[in-house]
Amino acid sequence: MKFSKLFIPTTKEMPSDATLPSHQYLVRGGFISQNGSGIYDFMPLGKIVLEKIRKIVKEEMDEAGALEVQFGFVTPLSLWEESGRDLTMGNEMLRFKDRKGTSFVLSPTNEESVVNMVKNRITSYKDLPVHLYQINTKFRDEARPRFGLMRGREFLMKDGYSFHSSEEDLVREFNLMEATYKKIYTKLGLDFRVVEADSGAIGGSGSKEFHVIASSGEDTIVVCDSCDYAANIEAAKRKKIEYNFEISVETKVETLNTITIEDVSKLLNVPTEQTLKAVIKKAIFKEGLKIAIFFVRGSDELEETKAVNSINALEIIDATNEEISEAGIVAGYCGIKNLPKNVLVVVDSELEGSNSIVCGANEENYHLINVDITKIENIVFKDLVAVKEGDICNCCGGKLSYTKGIEAGHIFQLGTKYSKAMNANFLDENGKAKPFVMGCYGIGVSRLVAAVIEQNHDDKGCIWTKQTAPFMVDVIVSNSKNEDEAKAGEDIYQSLRKLGIETILDDRINARFGFKIGDFELLGFPYAIIIGKKLSEGIVELVDRKTLEKVEVKIDEVVSKISDLIK
Amino acid sequence: MKFSKLFIPTTKEMPSDATLPSHQYLVRGGFISQNGSGIYDFMPLGKIVLEKIRKIVKEEMDEAGALEVQFGFVTPLSLWEESGRDLTMGNEMLRFKDRKGTSFVLSPTNEESVVNMVKNRITSYKDLPVHLYQINTKFRDEARPRFGLMRGREFLMKDGYSFHSSEEDLVREFNLMEATYKKIYTKLGLDFRVVEADSGAIGGSGSKEFHVIASSGEDTIVVCDSCDYAANIEAAKRKKIEYNFEISVETKVETLNTITIEDVSKLLNVPTEQTLKAVIKKAIFKEGLKIAIFFVRGSDELEETKAVNSINALEIIDATNEEISEAGIVAGYCGIKNLPKNVLVVVDSELEGSNSIVCGANEENYHLINVDITKIENIVFKDLVAVKEGDICNCCGGKLSYTKGIEAGHIFQLGTKYSKAMNANFLDENGKAKPFVMGCYGIGVSRLVAAVIEQNHDDKGCIWTKQTAPFMVDVIVSNSKNEDEAKAGEDIYQSLRKLGIETILDDRINARFGFKIGDFELLGFPYAIIIGKKLSEGIVELVDRKTLEKVEVKIDEVVSKISDLIK
Repeated sequence: MKFSKLFIPTTKEMPSDATLPSHQYLVRGGFISQNGSGIYDFMPLGKIVLEKIRKIVKEEMDEAGALEVQFGFVTPLSLWEESGRDLTMGNEMLRFKDRKGTSFVLSPTNEESVVNMVKNRITSYKDLPVHLYQINTKFRDEARPRFGLMRGREFLMKDGYSFHSSEEDLVREFNLMEATYKKIYTKLGLDFRVVEADSGAIGGSGSKEFHVIASSGEDTIVVCDSCDYAANIEAAKRKKIEYNFEISVETKVETLNTITIEDVSKLLNVPTEQTLKAVIKKAIFKEGLKIAIFFVRGSDELEETKAVNSINALEIIDATNEEISEAGIVAGYCGIKNLPKNVLVVVDSELEGSNSIVCGANEENYHLINVDITKIENIVFKDLVAVKEGDICNCCGGKLSYTKGIEAGHIFQLGTKYSKAMNANFLDENGKAKPFVMGCYGIGVSRLVAAVIEQNHDDKGCIWTKQTAPFMVDVIVSNSKNEDEAKAGEDIYQSLRKLGIETILDDRINARFGFKIGDFELLGFPYAIIIGKKLSEGIVELVDRKTLEKVEVKIDEVVSKISDLIK
Repeated sequence: MKFSKLFIPTTKEMPSDATLPSHQYLVRGGFISQNGSGIYDFMPLGKIVLEKIRKIVKEEMDEAGALEVQFGFVTPLSLWEESGRDLTMGNEMLRFKDRKGTSFVLSPTNEESVVNMVKNRITSYKDLPVHLYQINTKFRDEARPRFGLMRGREFLMKDGYSFHSSEEDLVREFNLMEATYKKIYTKLGLDFRVVEADSGAIGGSGSKEFHVIASSGEDTIVVCDSCDYAANIEAAKRKKIEYNFEISVETKVETLNTITIEDVSKLLNVPTEQTLKAVIKKAIFKEGLKIAIFFVRGSDELEETKAVNSINALEIIDATNEEISEAGIVAGYCGIKNLPKNVLVVVDSELEGSNSIVCGANEENYHLINVDITKIENIVFKDLVAVKEGDICNCCGGKLSYTKGIEAGHIFQLGTKYSKAMNANFLDENGKAKPFVMGCYGIGVSRLVAAVIEQNHDDKGCIWTKQTAPFMVDVIVSNSKNEDEAKAGEDIYQSLRKLGIETILDDRINARFGFKIGDFELLGFPYAIIIGKKLSEGIVELVDRKTLEKVEVKIDEVVSKISDLIK
C-alpha cells in the first residue's frame, strides 16, 4: 500500500489518561481511536494488526479440530437465569430491555449460549467430543475502563467451549489447547509463560493462564529459574521447608507490649519461622459476614485469593479493631488456642505437623511457647502463603522469582457446572443421561494488540513482531518531489510486493524526511529502506526498527537482503 | 472435513414461524440457531458460508481501494445527538444506560462514528478521497423480527463511508462502488439487478439498490425487458404517454351515485385515462397532521412512497370519511377545482399540460368535464404514479414488468448531511473550510446467506452456489461399516483435498444411506459422489445437487470429472 492512499493519522498529541506505552503509541500512531469510555475504534493500520492476530488464532484453532461458530452478541437474560449467573455476574454484565420490555444482555462470555446450542442437538456419547469456538465482540461494563485496549469494555475475544463424555477426555483437550495456545503465542513472536492459575469465579478444577511477559503487566507471576514452572501469585506453590525446632513443654510467657512478629521473635529469641502470624479478616458470604483468622508462619505473608478460596467466601476485607475485640479476639496476642467458637480458622498447610511454635495466648501481654499443633483437634489446613522470591521450586528445586505478565489467555476445566445447571445431558454407553463435561478456553484478541506493544517498544514508538506488523517494510522516499528518488522507491516497492512481502511506500509529497522517519519509528514496521542522497551512487539505507541500526546497501541488493532478513 | 468430526445437527423439525425457504432450510440444516427474537447463532456450517461471503466482500472492497476499519458496536448516544439522529431514528435504535448512567446505543449504522473518526484527522483536500469500511455486527430493534436471517435484529453488515472534496469525486466513487457491488454479487453466483431507489430517510441525492431476484422478495422491482433499466417500485419511472382528447368547454354534469372511476367512465363515455382519481390521505408531519389529496389519472394507481416524498411527510395514512368531510371535501366527487384552502394538493407530473379532463365537482352527484388543467394556477406537479406492468421504458421504449427482489445492497450519495451537522470540515485549494462530501455503501452480509437460498433451493433443501457452498463435494459412503466402501471414500476424499477442492466425507458409521442422501439434499452441497454397491465394479455415482441427476462414473475418473465441473 502507499502511504498517500492510506489513512494513518499519526499525531504527537497523547491522550491525557494514557499511562501505558501501548495506549500512548497505538493512539498516537493512528491505530485506534477512542469512541467512548473503554470503547475503541480500529483505524486501518490497527485493523490490519487485529486481523493478523485473529487469523493466527483461527488457523491454530482449526488445526486443533475446533469448529468456528458465532453466537449472538446480544443474548436474552433468560439464558443467564437458567445457569443462575444473572445473580452472580454483577454490574460488569450490561443488561437492558428491548422495545417490547424483554431483558437482554451484552455477552461478557458465552458459556450459556454454547450450552444452549449443543443441548438437545448432541444427545449421544458417540457425537462427542465437540469443541466450538468463536472470535467475536464481548462487552464488560468495567467499573474503571483504562489502559486503552488493555482493559476496555468492548473487546474482541476468542472463546472456545468443549464438550466431553468424561473427565479424561476433557483433560486430553485441555492439554491440546495448552499446546495450541503455545503455538499461537510463539507464532505471534511473543515472550510468554504458561502459568498455573486460580480458577476464580468461573468455577471448575484445572486452569492455566497465558501471560505475555511485560514490565507493565498487572499480574505478578512466580517463575522458576531452572524449570518451566510458572504460576500466578494467587496460585503459586513452593517446596515446603521442614524445620526441626527444639521440643519442650507448652508454656505461657509474659510478653508486655510485644505485638509484632519481629518484637516477639527478638524478645523470645526464636526465628520468625517459629512464630505464628494471625491475619484477622471480615469474610463476606452470600449469607452474611463472619470473622475469619488465617494463620501463616511469622516469616510468611498471606495470599488473599488463597484465603478467599480456602473458606469459599465472596471476598475478604480487613476487620476493624472494634470488630476484632467484639468477636472475642485479643488483637496482637491472637493465637491458635483459646479462640472464640464463632470465628472461622484456617491454618497454612505448611504448618501441618509443626510443634514448638510460638503464638499469642489470646490474652493481653501473653504468648504461648512450644505449642504442638499436632495436638490441636479439628484444624483446617489449606494453602495460604504468598510465595516469595527466593523460595524453592516444588517441581525441580530451582529458585523462584517474580516477573510481571499480561494475561492474554486462560484455559479452564469447567466440568459439569454449566451443563448441570442448564440440564444439558447426553446418553452414555449404557443409555444413562449424564451432564456434558466441559472445558472453556479464552484468548483476548484485541488485548493482544496492546500486549505486543507492551512487550515490544522503545521511547520512540512501537516495534511490531514480524507476525503482527501491519507492514514488514517501509520504503521511505526522502524527498518525493525528486523524480529519481520517487522512481527508485516505486521500483523497490513493486519488487518487494512481487515477492509477497508486505510493504508500504512512503510516497507523501508534502511530508519532510524527518517526519517520515518519525512516523516509521512511531508506527514500528520491522524494517525501513531509505532512498536518499546516496541514490546517485546506487546506495540506499536499511534500518532495523528494533535496534535502529542503519546500514548502507547497494540498491540492487536491498530486496534480496530484506528477503533474507524476514525469513 | 469429516462429517463425524463436524457439528451439523440436521433435523426434520421446522420452526413454527418459518414461512420462507431460507428460514426453514437454514434452521433444519443446522446452519443457524435462534438465540432470541431476531437473533441467530451461526453453527459451524453457517459460519463457513458467512465467512465465504465476508471474504468476497472484503476482497472486492480492498481491490477498490477502500480501507477496512472497525467501529465500536456500542456507541455513545452523544454522537447521535451531534447529528440530530437521536431524534429521528425512532425505536429501531436500541438505547441503554451503562453502570454509570451514561446513554449508549447499539449501532444500527455508523455514519456518526465514521465522521467522528475522520473529523480533525483529515484536514486538507490533499488527503481526500478516503473510503473507510467495516464488516461488523449491527442491531436494529425491529418491531416484528421475522423471516430468519432476512429481517433479524442482530445482523452482519458491510458498511462503507467515503469522503470527498467535491460532488464530482463522490459520483466517481459511487460509480466505482456500483461496479464493485456488481462484481461481488456476480462472484457470489447470484442473479441480481441494480435498481434505482428511493433515498428515504437516510437523505442525500442519488441512491441505488442491489436486489437478489427471488419470488419471495419483499420488494417489487420494475424491470425493462430490453435494457438494463430496473427500479424499485417506489422510484420507478416510465415513458409518459401523450393523450389527445377532444377539447371542449368545461361543464358541470349530473352524475348521480357515480363515485368510482369505472362508473364515471361508463356514464360519461370517456376512457379512464381521461378521468382524474383523487386519493385522500392524512399526512403526518413533525408539526402535526394535514389532509392531503393526490391526483393521478383514473387509469393509474398512487405510489405511496412517492406521495410521502412529494410533500416531505413522515408518513401518510388513510383518511376516514369523517375526516374527509370535516375538511370540506366531498368523498367520491373530489376534483381539482373548488377545493378547501387548508388541504395539501399534489398532481401527478404526467397530467401537466392536460386538458379535457373529467373530475369530481366537489359537489355531491356532480362531475366536471372538459377541465383544462393548464388553466389552474399554483398546481404542484410531482411524480406520483405506480408504474404498471406493460408500461413503456423511459430509457429504451421496451416493455416494463414486475419482479420480486431481496434488497442486499444499497449505495447512497449522502452529500454533506452528516458532515455539516457534525461540523466536519476540510480546507479546500483556497484554504476555505468546507464540509466533507460523503457517500455511504451497505451490503447485508448475513442477509445474503438467506438470499442465496431464497434464490437457490428446491422442495428438498438448499442449493448453494459454488462460491457460497460450505463444501463443494459431499463424498457419501453408503455403508461406512463396509471397509472397502469406507476406504474408497477416504481415498477420493484425500484426492479431492489434495487438489484444493473443499470436500466433506460422510463417514458416519451409524447413519443409514437414505439419511446421508437426505442430508446431502437438505444441506445443498453442489455435488455428491456416492460410493455404493457398484464399487466392486469400479463404479461410483456423481450427483448434481441442482438437477439431482445421477450419473455413473468410473472410480478412477471421478476426481478429474469433479475438477472439470467446478472450474
